[in-house]
Amino acid sequence: MKYFDCKNVELTGGYWKNKEEINRKITMEAVWNRFVETGRIKAFVFDYKEDEGFKIHHFWDSDVAKWMEAASYFIGKGFDEFSERMEYLIDGLIKNQMKDGYFNSFYQYPGKIGGRFTDRNMHELYCAGHLMEAACAYFEATGKDRFLKAMERYADLIEKVFIKEESAAFATPGHEEIELALVKMYKTTGKEKYLDMAKFFVNKRGCSEKDINEKWGMVGYIGGGGMKHLSCYAQNHLPVREQTTAEGHAVRAMYLYSAMADLACICGDDELGSACEKIFDNIVSKRMYITGGIGSGKLGEAFTVDYDLPNETSYAETCAAIGLSFFANRMTALKNEAFYADVAERALYNGMMAGLGIAGDDFFYTNPLEINLLHHGKDVSVRETEWLPITQRKKIFDCSCCPPNLNRVLASLGGMIYGYEGDTLYVNQFTESKGEEGGIRVCQKTSYPNDGHIEIESNAKVLYVRIPSWCDSFKANIPYEKRCGYAVFEGGNAIIDIKLTPRIVKANPKVRENFGKAALTFGPLVYCLEGVDNGDVFARRLVRNGEFNVIYNEEFKLNVIETWGIGANESEELYTSKDNEEEKVPLIFIPYSCFANRGESDMKVWIDLA
Amino acid sequence: MKYFDCKNVELTGGYWKNKEEINRKITMEAVWNRFVETGRIKAFVFDYKEDEGFKIHHFWDSDVAKWMEAASYFIGKGFDEFSERMEYLIDGLIKNQMKDGYFNSFYQYPGKIGGRFTDRNMHELYCAGHLMEAACAYFEATGKDRFLKAMERYADLIEKVFIKEESAAFATPGHEEIELALVKMYKTTGKEKYLDMAKFFVNKRGCSEKDINEKWGMVGYIGGGGMKHLSCYAQNHLPVREQTTAEGHAVRAMYLYSAMADLACICGDDELGSACEKIFDNIVSKRMYITGGIGSGKLGEAFTVDYDLPNETSYAETCAAIGLSFFANRMTALKNEAFYADVAERALYNGMMAGLGIAGDDFFYTNPLEINLLHHGKDVSVRETEWLPITQRKKIFDCSCCPPNLNRVLASLGGMIYGYEGDTLYVNQFTESKGEEGGIRVCQKTSYPNDGHIEIESNAKVLYVRIPSWCDSFKANIPYEKRCGYAVFEGGNAIIDIKLTPRIVKANPKVRENFGKAALTFGPLVYCLEGVDNGDVFARRLVRNGEFNVIYNEEFKLNVIETWGIGANESEELYTSKDNEEEKVPLIFIPYSCFANRGESDMKVWIDLA
Repeated sequence: MKYFDCKNVELTGGYWKNKEEINRKITMEAVWNRFVETGRIKAFVFDYKEDEGFKIHHFWDSDVAKWMEAASYFIGKGFDEFSERMEYLIDGLIKNQMKDGYFNSFYQYPGKIGGRFTDRNMHELYCAGHLMEAACAYFEATGKDRFLKAMERYADLIEKVFIKEESAAFATPGHEEIELALVKMYKTTGKEKYLDMAKFFVNKRGCSEKDINEKWGMVGYIGGGGMKHLSCYAQNHLPVREQTTAEGHAVRAMYLYSAMADLACICGDDELGSACEKIFDNIVSKRMYITGGIGSGKLGEAFTVDYDLPNETSYAETCAAIGLSFFANRMTALKNEAFYADVAERALYNGMMAGLGIAGDDFFYTNPLEINLLHHGKDVSVRETEWLPITQRKKIFDCSCCPPNLNRVLASLGGMIYGYEGDTLYVNQFTESKGEEGGIRVCQKTSYPNDGHIEIESNAKVLYVRIPSWCDSFKANIPYEKRCGYAVFEGGNAIIDIKLTPRIVKANPKVRENFGKAALTFGPLVYCLEGVDNGDVFARRLVRNGEFNVIYNEEFKLNVIETWGIGANESEELYTSKDNEEEKVPLIFIPYSCFANRGESDMKVWIDLA
Repeated sequence: MKYFDCKNVELTGGYWKNKEEINRKITMEAVWNRFVETGRIKAFVFDYKEDEGFKIHHFWDSDVAKWMEAASYFIGKGFDEFSERMEYLIDGLIKNQMKDGYFNSFYQYPGKIGGRFTDRNMHELYCAGHLMEAACAYFEATGKDRFLKAMERYADLIEKVFIKEESAAFATPGHEEIELALVKMYKTTGKEKYLDMAKFFVNKRGCSEKDINEKWGMVGYIGGGGMKHLSCYAQNHLPVREQTTAEGHAVRAMYLYSAMADLACICGDDELGSACEKIFDNIVSKRMYITGGIGSGKLGEAFTVDYDLPNETSYAETCAAIGLSFFANRMTALKNEAFYADVAERALYNGMMAGLGIAGDDFFYTNPLEINLLHHGKDVSVRETEWLPITQRKKIFDCSCCPPNLNRVLASLGGMIYGYEGDTLYVNQFTESKGEEGGIRVCQKTSYPNDGHIEIESNAKVLYVRIPSWCDSFKANIPYEKRCGYAVFEGGNAIIDIKLTPRIVKANPKVRENFGKAALTFGPLVYCLEGVDNGDVFARRLVRNGEFNVIYNEEFKLNVIETWGIGANESEELYTSKDNEEEKVPLIFIPYSCFANRGESDMKVWIDLA
């Protein structure tokens, strides 16, 4: 299938429409303002001096580029408030772009240049890739081509240096991104050259002596060793077709796998597709948090080993959950299987949305599944020998990749809902929306994920509607067949009722942290207990057959779930063989994505099961 | 009460007798040999050159002194094999002692001297204290006084510099030890001066501007901050009489509190005694592992906050458990309450004995309550950002305080059993032994802790026998009254049956790590599950009303406990709402002190409770 482009889908109501609006009105402005304050915007237009405060960084261009991509999507939807800023940034870029096409505000900063394309860990091609994505989005939104043309000149330079001359000091970049960006360049311009370049960078990974044998600049950063092989960090340990497990830095991995899936789909490359399938399976069956968070290790922000999913020290970067949704959507398109879209849904509602505060102006980079405030003592640093994620969202980070990534995903979420192939429509996600592409029109009415009633009207000949894998009861007003995880209807219309109920979910016993524990879910949402509602969440147990009240919460725009659990009575003794009297206590579960919005609090996703 | 001196008690059989013999035959020789190999012995007799390998360290004298103290106890029992080495060491010490009485192999090493008594963290008075303890023990064992006289000269110098002239750069040492050593010097020599010196150092702590305001040399070592106040590290945060909680470096704390309890007892100082009671209560009701391990934090090897008792990252230094037994015995003597001896028993059988391998020649410094080998991956360092205790005992450590501490405790354990006051005999610990002191003779027959049958014969007029606080059934052949945790018998004889059964113990719900979990105990012994016996111990649950088989194990000289628990079936899915079928699996619990004797293995004390 091919997904509807986001510009062809309008969110008309519900959870994601609300997030899109908050993004436009609050998050986009918040990120812009922080980027102004920290020098990123001035640096982008070469109007920046280091002595003004912040120190220019080699990934700043990518931060601005992601905001530009998001702004382009909004401009495409007819919102005008970002147009002037876009033109200002593009003016700056074009004015400062070098004659040979090179653009990088860090390497062109006085005193920094000289080493261009000599250090694969310096994010040059990563920045270039994000600028290409932004340029494609801006062209698609406006038809104006000067940004795209500038990026084509840059792409030509990259082709010359990396492919024709092989004069760069490395063959593949340390942080993937250029690969999937070049696929977008191909799709936007129709020029095969960019597809070939994408293939080059993907195929070269894990194969080039230049990259594999280099002395890693990142060694100090990632702790001086410890990864199985340092080359895993940037997925350089094997040729991509031989990779079967998700390894290394989780965001880098997702961007690479996304490009691999793109190429498998466009080129019909079954070997690449098969590698993608194996890697995807490794993620979802052994290395993914229930929230869709991935990359459980602080060391290298990386995948560790199967079933190693610590809750308190989870890294689970917001960008990695976003990356997983990218990979999952591409796999859905490649395989036409609903299972992949399930994973995208899980990552979007939980792992990604936890990264954005309810008010829309603060962010998590890491997303813990458990907060034990005892370990964050204010007067006593109990755990100075361990790394712990922060407990409250911040307005910006030194490495602020996640906030503008949220900008662009929330501005383009319409592009993750519908797919089509000829006269067949695929409904992969449920949210109130309208779409039209390739002659297919669709209108979806629902208040999902708070309610499972979904009405779909379309002019398609055949309608595929995803049956969520967690779903026990999927009913429709007309008959359907099941195929590849979809309910398949003749004709384009269906009224569907997915039974949404609180579900107690257990982890595989090999996940040592979660043995004897359970998580509460409702539809695609993972829930958590916060101390602010529940007192000592570390002394609470969930009961298997409790009664649950599901109540819509206006602040969260999602349901909360009230139930009863087991608490522990106060006790003086440190150790006792007495049968601790345990008492029934009310439990209030909130959606995981909504934690840490009401002050600092203990928090737990995985609860002891009585 | 006053404890029988260890030289007046003979262990005649059972667990501790076996450990005493292993200590004499294996552990004493192993420690000596490692001290020879690492240069400690040569350094002690000033026959050492840095270029021969190891680098002389400022606490080496204390290592040797503790071995000397242990050797003295054995010499006192008539074992001759250590006599020659003792005389060799004493020769060296006397030959090299400075004219003014100073002795320190580190500060007298060419190039090191010049800074004597200028840095309170350099363990000079700690080394001096251990030498004094050794000198007292050697004099008591042999009647030879040249070592004791040498130490008296050193004590005189310390009095001059610290008390009369106040010319030292600090008022109290960074690592306590001199305080309780001076009490021993007083007891051995009868000279009040040493008692006054002990009082001086105890009373000055927390009161001297010299100590409180200094810039700590340890800042770098303990992580650059984080302790509530750095002064907590060496219990310098408050005058000792105002201290109510156990703070800072756990071994330092125990040695201070032991001296405080000594002084409270000898001088009838109720204020000091009351502070000791409060601190002791804080330890046992909020800051002690079930094993009697204390000092849960790697940072500063220290107490952290109430109820912070992490299992996997427990520090719980062997020396700290030993120190707790010292403090507990002194509190028993001060208060005549059995409760304190319970704590000594817990620390000795579990926290301390875990520090020594079954073979007697390898050691733990830190003692984890949980080992998750996944986190110690050989190919993958999953947890490079965290500190974890080692999983296998070592022959020696750079900081090798624990091995010779085991030497001296296991050589003098007879001194922890009986107490008396006039015609009244107190039996504080149960182990096969004979004793005679102050006109009281006692003989105890038992195979405790493997069996609860205890026969006591003595010529005392009144017999106090500790009723262990964990004990549900304490029966005797003759009537008794209960008083202060003791069974009080008229006359000196009693036959007692303590019912020893496997007991499921829960922790206070405020210990967040252990909620929903239980530990299995049997008498004073804490048990654990090891992977070598049980497979994946992280996927095992204990059932509340299981059947238990108690089986004597010849290798451990202790009982092991077999039962059935709940295991988890293999599962493919990472997350599922299916009711995981759980199966009955055999569980083999071994005494905690015996873990890590059969190769590297997962290990758990606190088990999920079904």
